[in-house]
Amino acid sequence: MPDYTPSREDKFSFGLWTVGWQARDLFGEATRPVLAAVEAVHKLAELGAYGITFHDDDLIPPGSSRTERARIIDEFKQALKETGMVVPMATTNLFGDPVFKDGGFTSNDRSVRRYAIRKVMRNIDLSAELGAEVYVFWGGREGSEVDVAKDVRSALDRYREALDTLAQYSIDQGYGLRFAIEPKPNEPRGDILLPSIGHALAFINELEHADMVGINPETGHEQMASLNYTHGIAQALWAGKLFHIDLNGQKGPRYDQDFVFGYGDLLQAFSTVDLLENGAPGGGPTYDGDRHFDYKPLRTENMDGVWESALANMTLYLALRDRARSFRADPEVQEALEAARVAELGRPTLGEGEGYHELLADKSAFEDFDIDRARDQGYGFARLQRLALEHLLGVRSAIEP
Amino acid sequence: MPDYTPSREDKFSFGLWTVGWQARDLFGEATRPVLAAVEAVHKLAELGAYGITFHDDDLIPPGSSRTERARIIDEFKQALKETGMVVPMATTNLFGDPVFKDGGFTSNDRSVRRYAIRKVMRNIDLSAELGAEVYVFWGGREGSEVDVAKDVRSALDRYREALDTLAQYSIDQGYGLRFAIEPKPNEPRGDILLPSIGHALAFINELEHADMVGINPETGHEQMASLNYTHGIAQALWAGKLFHIDLNGQKGPRYDQDFVFGYGDLLQAFSTVDLLENGAPGGGPTYDGDRHFDYKPLRTENMDGVWESALANMTLYLALRDRARSFRADPEVQEALEAARVAELGRPTLGEGEGYHELLADKSAFEDFDIDRARDQGYGFARLQRLALEHLLGVRSAIEP
Amino acid sequence: MPDYTPSREDKFSFGLWTVGWQARDLFGEATRPVLAAVEAVHKLAELGAYGITFHDDDLIPPGSSRTERARIIDEFKQALKETGMVVPMATTNLFGDPVFKDGGFTSNDRSVRRYAIRKVMRNIDLSAELGAEVYVFWGGREGSEVDVAKDVRSALDRYREALDTLAQYSIDQGYGLRFAIEPKPNEPRGDILLPSIGHALAFINELEHADMVGINPETGHEQMASLNYTHGIAQALWAGKLFHIDLNGQKGPRYDQDFVFGYGDLLQAFSTVDLLENGAPGGGPTYDGDRHFDYKPLRTENMDGVWESALANMTLYLALRDRARSFRADPEVQEALEAARVAELGRPTLGEGEGYHELLADKSAFEDFDIDRARDQGYGFARLQRLALEHLLGVRSAIEP
Amino acid sequence: MPDYTPSREDKFSFGLWTVGWQARDLFGEATRPVLAAVEAVHKLAELGAYGITFHDDDLIPPGSSRTERARIIDEFKQALKETGMVVPMATTNLFGDPVFKDGGFTSNDRSVRRYAIRKVMRNIDLSAELGAEVYVFWGGREGSEVDVAKDVRSALDRYREALDTLAQYSIDQGYGLRFAIEPKPNEPRGDILLPSIGHALAFINELEHADMVGINPETGHEQMASLNYTHGIAQALWAGKLFHIDLNGQKGPRYDQDFVFGYGDLLQAFSTVDLLENGAPGGGPTYDGDRHFDYKPLRTENMDGVWESALANMTLYLALRDRARSFRADPEVQEALEAARVAELGRPTLGEGEGYHELLADKSAFEDFDIDRARDQGYGFARLQRLALEHLLGVRSAIEP
Repeated sequence: MPDYTPSREDKFSFGLWTVGWQARDLFGEATRPVLAAVEAVHKLAELGAYGITFHDDDLIPPGSSRTERARIIDEFKQALKETGMVVPMATTNLFGDPVFKDGGFTSNDRSVRRYAIRKVMRNIDLSAELGAEVYVFWGGREGSEVDVAKDVRSALDRYREALDTLAQYSIDQGYGLRFAIEPKPNEPRGDILLPSIGHALAFINELEHADMVGINPETGHEQMASLNYTHGIAQALWAGKLFHIDLNGQKGPRYDQDFVFGYGDLLQAFSTVDLLENGAPGGGPTYDGDRHFDYKPLRTENMDGVWESALANMTLYLALRDRARSFRADPEVQEALEAARVAELGRPTLGEGEGYHELLADKSAFEDFDIDRARDQGYGFARLQRLALEHLLGVRSAIEP
Repeated sequence: MPDYTPSREDKFSFGLWTVGWQARDLFGEATRPVLAAVEAVHKLAELGAYGITFHDDDLIPPGSSRTERARIIDEFKQALKETGMVVPMATTNLFGDPVFKDGGFTSNDRSVRRYAIRKVMRNIDLSAELGAEVYVFWGGREGSEVDVAKDVRSALDRYREALDTLAQYSIDQGYGLRFAIEPKPNEPRGDILLPSIGHALAFINELEHADMVGINPETGHEQMASLNYTHGIAQALWAGKLFHIDLNGQKGPRYDQDFVFGYGDLLQAFSTVDLLENGAPGGGPTYDGDRHFDYKPLRTENMDGVWESALANMTLYLALRDRARSFRADPEVQEALEAARVAELGRPTLGEGEGYHELLADKSAFEDFDIDRARDQGYGFARLQRLALEHLLGVRSAIEP
Repeated sequence: MPDYTPSREDKFSFGLWTVGWQARDLFGEATRPVLAAVEAVHKLAELGAYGITFHDDDLIPPGSSRTERARIIDEFKQALKETGMVVPMATTNLFGDPVFKDGGFTSNDRSVRRYAIRKVMRNIDLSAELGAEVYVFWGGREGSEVDVAKDVRSALDRYREALDTLAQYSIDQGYGLRFAIEPKPNEPRGDILLPSIGHALAFINELEHADMVGINPETGHEQMASLNYTHGIAQALWAGKLFHIDLNGQKGPRYDQDFVFGYGDLLQAFSTVDLLENGAPGGGPTYDGDRHFDYKPLRTENMDGVWESALANMTLYLALRDRARSFRADPEVQEALEAARVAELGRPTLGEGEGYHELLADKSAFEDFDIDRARDQGYGFARLQRLALEHLLGVRSAIEP
Repeated sequence: MPDYTPSREDKFSFGLWTVGWQARDLFGEATRPVLAAVEAVHKLAELGAYGITFHDDDLIPPGSSRTERARIIDEFKQALKETGMVVPMATTNLFGDPVFKDGGFTSNDRSVRRYAIRKVMRNIDLSAELGAEVYVFWGGREGSEVDVAKDVRSALDRYREALDTLAQYSIDQGYGLRFAIEPKPNEPRGDILLPSIGHALAFINELEHADMVGINPETGHEQMASLNYTHGIAQALWAGKLFHIDLNGQKGPRYDQDFVFGYGDLLQAFSTVDLLENGAPGGGPTYDGDRHFDYKPLRTENMDGVWESALANMTLYLALRDRARSFRADPEVQEALEAARVAELGRPTLGEGEGYHELLADKSAFEDFDIDRARDQGYGFARLQRLALEHLLGVRSAIEP
């Protein structure tokens, strides 16, 4: 059997709030004890992760005194030092405190908006100090349940204002941070602003410092909107905006499940890993940031189950990486890709130097087009799909185990 | 009882393919006869519509000879002239013919891509001749069922290439057309490219002639992805990209239902009309194009039912317009909007001339922020929601009937 | 304007946990204070409700001493007496305590199953004492996220065992309770057992005391599974099993929203009220239990918003009842129902005394059937739909306001 | 690499309408030629299937003369004889002809209802002659888009009347058929009657010949309603009603995709095969009918792709069967199942001879229950989930390849 033990080189990271989730939900109380950040760092390092990420309030309980805050940060740094773990990303909790019940940057209450920006600034300072390169914005409470109670255009103005201000701050401080927006369609708000990868990408184009802002798409969030996650990150890569990634599992449009990566749409997890690791069939850039898991261990589990599931994220990723490489290395797959003309799509539709004039003049393109051939041909996608599934299942393999 | 008889001033338009749908679906044969375009024009005019739109193949059956084509166009023009109906928008059928089974602009077969561009060019000529101002692109077959068989980044390159080429063509011909992309998440493809308003807006930013390209969002398409349609068109308006609109009804994520406008999420239909007609509560631009219905009359109906449902779209829109005006005119609503600080969101979070320096220096924003007040306050959205529903139902009214 | 002030005769009831919800969710802390049960009783009575319902743990905080328990019950009874409010239904919380993380009746841990039955017995005693007629079972934690970890057939055996035992207990105590199962497809478990009205009805057929067990369907729960709530309660009425009802609002398959009744699918809320109040167009039994709201006031609201929304449930119901009566009373509707042959469906397909022999012998039924007439006819549903919407909106009315 | 070549012993069957689907959909024309039934029989036999199923209109084109009908049947029988293929199931097309636009058994038009019953009787005769043991009823047009236009209770009466009549007919003819209802939530109707496994099971209980009626659940149909298919068939097995099965693939609530089995929710396909083949972990009956695929080959494919995908259904099933056996045979899995107490759920909650009296008297069950132990314990589901996925992927194996 192959060895899928994760190592630092695999660049796996976890949110502190994931393994630290106490499993309190809307319908029930916590089933697990508090997990100290320091313990999380050590345990994740031991399992093979290389990074840990956090919200300000995960690391430093709200209401901590200045002294407590300093002590917590020191201990956290010490744990990072001892384990060699890094903090590739950090973010702000603008959703847990009742003050954010109508959002942070887009609350109808202006004083809340000001408070929210300040809260982010404080954690940006800490994140930079801890070496974070990406700063994530998940606006889980930016949204509404009542259409007439939220002016979405003004809300987008305020969202932009907040990000422009914070980007300027980060630039001026020389933090070198890249911002990443994390879209989500709904929950906990009835409808959340910037609900999908597309909406976030479109929004970024309107920002003052658009170049330093990208996205942090989460598998389950897109799938809650019936959207294809692999397609979504491909569009983000196309736009040069895949700054970070949140991997997990989800079973379609329902409550946010945050399952272990792959424990949802396994076929799409395969194509996601294939894209991240191998790029497009015709080549093109891949993703080289940390492979970040944003999941929730099942509420039925105790801490053994928490670590079991943390490990499961990483081993599954490694297994899928292996299978995706096997898929690409298989000569029959290469032949099937060729037959399906997957790479041909990389070839421009117009010829070298051709414009619409020349296209109009080309009778073979329209007037004399052999349409019946084009109608009758099979595209060979069924075969590619079968081959992909066989590699995914390990029924077929083209690499040394 | 109020009179909701539509008139030309209301700018209602219909796709020829809507009232002309013969009700053939995946599971069954046509239940209605062919409807002649000329008859559609006359009948819609009689009902109070002002415009009609078409796909090339709706108007001119594929395979028509040059002579037949000319005759059809002449008769259509004559009908427009007799009725005063206009053609505000037109579009291309790149999905019905088997040749497009893997898409038009993004087919893996390059010759199909070339054919598709040519097919559009031909209909752009006709559309300009008929006076269309908007040309819609719905890429219903641009997508995939098999992730590994479609290189999405190349597909987006090809999509862009096609639109850039066609935009240049329209510009050079002096047609003055504006292009509008119509997003859809899935069906008939497993996953369609540019699946939501957001994805389309983001894509447009990458186009050569981005200024002449906007979107044509359809109510049901967004709701199939559990997205809030009103929020979506608000983001499009914010980006200056709401070039056209397709109104209909849908009951959440399931097959594309194309019900009569409002016969799905009626509350959202209300907020949609309120936004289109009255703009944001704090003001801001509204939509002034044609109110276009893209729906399918129920398959159980004969032609009587077709016209019944065509009329229902318009009368419902007028009723909602009336109710939305009443909502805005109600002093209690004004008071409730004020209490909910809906317009306050239009006020910048930072003061005049304020930057992050000043915000940092403002202790009232963070260190001395009265967070308990902000936590305890109620936002008054429940009241606004109740008032909106009462106006929608006509239980409360602030205008002369 | 019509008066939609609720009164006791309207039989509206609320869960103590609805107006008492402190708005703590998976992502954030409580935004509202504790609401005393006694205050809830008084306030709801004042608003026009006639009943209040509860889970054991809503009324009596877990961990209360025997004395505290007695005191709470006394005060609650006193409040009921002072206000004339009744307790038409009660239920058990088998989901909040961590002990139920794998369910109550179907936990893999047998000792938990035994504890769960005992917990129910204790509250059944109290409920009977308080005059409840219906006892609800919502098994929100009975389910799984991991298919191979739950033997569904054994789980159904245990579910049946628990209900059979409890039914016997209630019978022997002479409580006269009727049990009502409340289905839900998912959340908080990945998949919940008895996920829809249908599954619960089918399960009931296997129970020892099936005659005393019915269902308590919730609007939003069915709609989370894309199911038509009105159809569902119609099937329950058909089976004689609509023992209780939970009304609220939901926007399709997503997290459980528990909006105010009607603030989701408003058209379906109309048909629901029409069915409950007026029965089938051809007649048939209606629902005569309490109209029970199981909703959650928006988390953005303070207690003013809570009472605002509680009232909104009732006034909307009354408005819909009025509009449904108007719909039925309208001669044009009657004519349209006749034309659409809605009541004709009540007529048996076979004639009096006819069996398949006679049907086979009737050539007009098949060999000589005028199939073209049947193919070409329109069913007139579009007209009925328009008329229903016009009555719903009050654009058309057939009754005195 | 293991050999997953299907053979007759595996009992795979296909609908004639699956490989024969010409790929005409709502948005486009057919992309494939007509497939002769005789060719389908031969080709499927060659691929390793053992059975073929049909709708009346698949086999015999509507409008065929008596002579043509006889010839077609003769040729079909001959093909079966030559190949050894059987017809385990047959069904009626009550959805394609415009006459059924408002349904067959529940059309508002009584003459259509009579015609529908006759159409079924005719095909029951043929099916019995061809040796079918199961007769399926999929009521795809039995439903509505307009709530007020369909009296659901009367519709269920008529549905029952039709099935009672047809059951009596089959019994009297001595055909020995078992009937199987196939549920579906929506499409092509807005809402279909008997929308889920549960609704169908509940309905069956009301039939005169309930013992001869069971269900034929389809993977994708349940998943369109966000329901767990494995849970659904488990409840059907529990009720002794899993008479037949339709396997395919679907990506959650959207249009009916009819993908190849497993090419949707692969994890659930694994648990489905595990349940069908191995029964519950604690034992219990399995399914022994034909493994029937009801899928649609991708519209992009020609006949090569059709046969490719037909084969893919079978090889995937065999691979999953192998993996499920490996899962069960693994000692670590056995240990994990034991630790998770999966089989313990088979043990009654009450002891031998115990009733509620004894349970009430058992203080260890409630008063002295060690609730903290039960709260703190982990259920070990994360481990089982990981092991299941590892067996599914073949990363771990406990059987000879």
